Amino acid sequence: MNSRILSSGNLGIKRFFALDSQAYEKGALDVKTKELLGLVASVVLRCNDCITYHVIRCVQQGVSEDGFFEALNVALIVGGSITIPHIRRAVETMDHCREKERKKESSQI
Amino acid sequence: MNSRILSSGNLGIKRFFALDSQAYEKGALDVKTKELLGLVASVVLRCNDCITYHVIRCVQQGVSEDGFFEALNVALIVGGSITIPHIRRAVETMDHCREKERKKESSQI
Amino acid sequence: MNSRILSSGNLGIKRFFALDSQAYEKGALDVKTKELLGLVASVVLRCNDCITYHVIRCVQQGVSEDGFFEALNVALIVGGSITIPHIRRAVETMDHCREKERKKESSQI
Amino acid sequence: MNSRILSSGNLGIKRFFALDSQAYEKGALDVKTKELLGLVASVVLRCNDCITYHVIRCVQQGVSEDGFFEALNVALIVGGSITIPHIRRAVETMDHCREKERKKESSQI
Amino acid sequence: MNSRILSSGNLGIKRFFALDSQAYEKGALDVKTKELLGLVASVVLRCNDCITYHVIRCVQQGVSEDGFFEALNVALIVGGSITIPHIRRAVETMDHCREKERKKESSQI
Amino acid sequence: MNSRILSSGNLGIKRFFALDSQAYEKGALDVKTKELLGLVASVVLRCNDCITYHVIRCVQQGVSEDGFFEALNVALIVGGSITIPHIRRAVETMDHCREKERKKESSQI
Repeated sequence: MNSRILSSGNLGIKRFFALDSQAYEKGALDVKTKELLGLVASVVLRCNDCITYHVIRCVQQGVSEDGFFEALNVALIVGGSITIPHIRRAVETMDHCREKERKKESSQI
Repeated sequence: MNSRILSSGNLGIKRFFALDSQAYEKGALDVKTKELLGLVASVVLRCNDCITYHVIRCVQQGVSEDGFFEALNVALIVGGSITIPHIRRAVETMDHCREKERKKESSQI
Repeated sequence: MNSRILSSGNLGIKRFFALDSQAYEKGALDVKTKELLGLVASVVLRCNDCITYHVIRCVQQGVSEDGFFEALNVALIVGGSITIPHIRRAVETMDHCREKERKKESSQI
Repeated sequence: MNSRILSSGNLGIKRFFALDSQAYEKGALDVKTKELLGLVASVVLRCNDCITYHVIRCVQQGVSEDGFFEALNVALIVGGSITIPHIRRAVETMDHCREKERKKESSQI
Repeated sequence: MNSRILSSGNLGIKRFFALDSQAYEKGALDVKTKELLGLVASVVLRCNDCITYHVIRCVQQGVSEDGFFEALNVALIVGGSITIPHIRRAVETMDHCREKERKKESSQI
Repeated sequence: MNSRILSSGNLGIKRFFALDSQAYEKGALDVKTKELLGLVASVVLRCNDCITYHVIRCVQQGVSEDGFFEALNVALIVGGSITIPHIRRAVETMDHCREKERKKESSQI
């Protein structure tokens, strides 16, 4: 669907998508920190698609399970119980990603 | 006002305030990262009082000006132009904090 | 300002304002419960003007201080720390209303 | 998923979950009123999982159908037409709960 | 479900539904403009059911594909990347509506 | 404050500000329609600074008083009573802008 939208000829949307990717690139803050920022923002704004995306990126960047839960705890405190269904989604996705990584690793031995 | 609320005898609110403080203590993630998470969450949810609090804490934790703007950029991209008045507030507070620090340092020479 | 808006000739807005008043009138639920519902909704959506209005109405309806804090605790748990500045405002307004009532009573003796 | 999250070892999240349950226990306000507060907060913040939970609890606490619709009307007025899909969900869940109760009762005769 | 809700006997909800329809009728602003307003409001508040409804109405009112993307761009800029999943939904629905129209037209030749 | 932010050297924020301006330029939709879209989005997201900005622009683009109230009515229906303080602000700003225009015109006679 993203390619459909980008092919629409609307320059504003196209450029926004570019800015969106660039916002998480390495700068004064590292990618890991930025992905955690994206994750917490997504949880408090309660967007499941965005959560899934940032969880995958966080796992790729090597966020530990404890670090992950601490970030979710900040989101839970700031955003309240209304974020709980989204925190469940985040943990589910994280477990799924780690499981996949483990399988890949064990198949490489 | 916080002490007024804490003296109300409502245990739930009292305990929530304690959890709120603990969420930003050092753990698997350092305090600096957690304060940045709190800042971005506050900007996308557009709470000026919370922004002021986390900006002060970020400056105390040594977040660089570039790191600061990168975090605000993530908030701006995720939350949209509706966050701009709050980003202005965050920058204003940061400038004010740094100015104060500079004065303190120069008076110590 | 409300009378300015109602005099604009826009029927939709006028009728909405009427529905807004009627929503808090006595029905299967009493006025006190409905004002508490309005208060909690206003706190989690973080609207200070609405909070002030419903706090005044809650005090008029005889909500006790403990009942008041329990309702605010539900709002705090559901809406998170982002509601804290609004909870402060609610308590401040409640204290102000009760103070006023006490003065009125003591001047009547 | 809740037990998975609670077993993560993150104390903050664990304690928040405890506060969440306690917020709806009997105090100066009764459980029925508190569940109605939770329901209205969930509708205006538009969280379907939370709505389902509080509707079930409201039915268990004996909220009448009229009382139920009056609470939803407050949420609709405060939160606007954007809450309509969630109000549909709430009514659907309520009908489902009542239907189940009726079946249970008639099977006991 | 709407007819179930309207048959509940709650006058407030019934009247709100009437106001909701009337808000998009022709007045000083034409229906097309009002449906675009409804669409952008639905995207920034991130309500998929509302988006689907307003997209269908926009297509019926003859909003061009370019006009459509420009309205979505305003929503994206105001509401940020958190609206992207909803913008995808809007484009998907628009494509679906136009496809249907084309089929109807070609079957009439 | 905007010039302070733009001088920070953060390219992402700078480019976002550019996209923000471009989103309201004439395209398939005219400027007037786009400013109305910006106004309604700002009201339902409840941002007073954004409302002030778009009201001024709407008056400059010749939105009639009736058209203005119809757009606000859409925002009120979609966003609910929680938007009322912001609708008051919008009307106040509109009255102020029109008053200013009238004075300018009468001084030119």
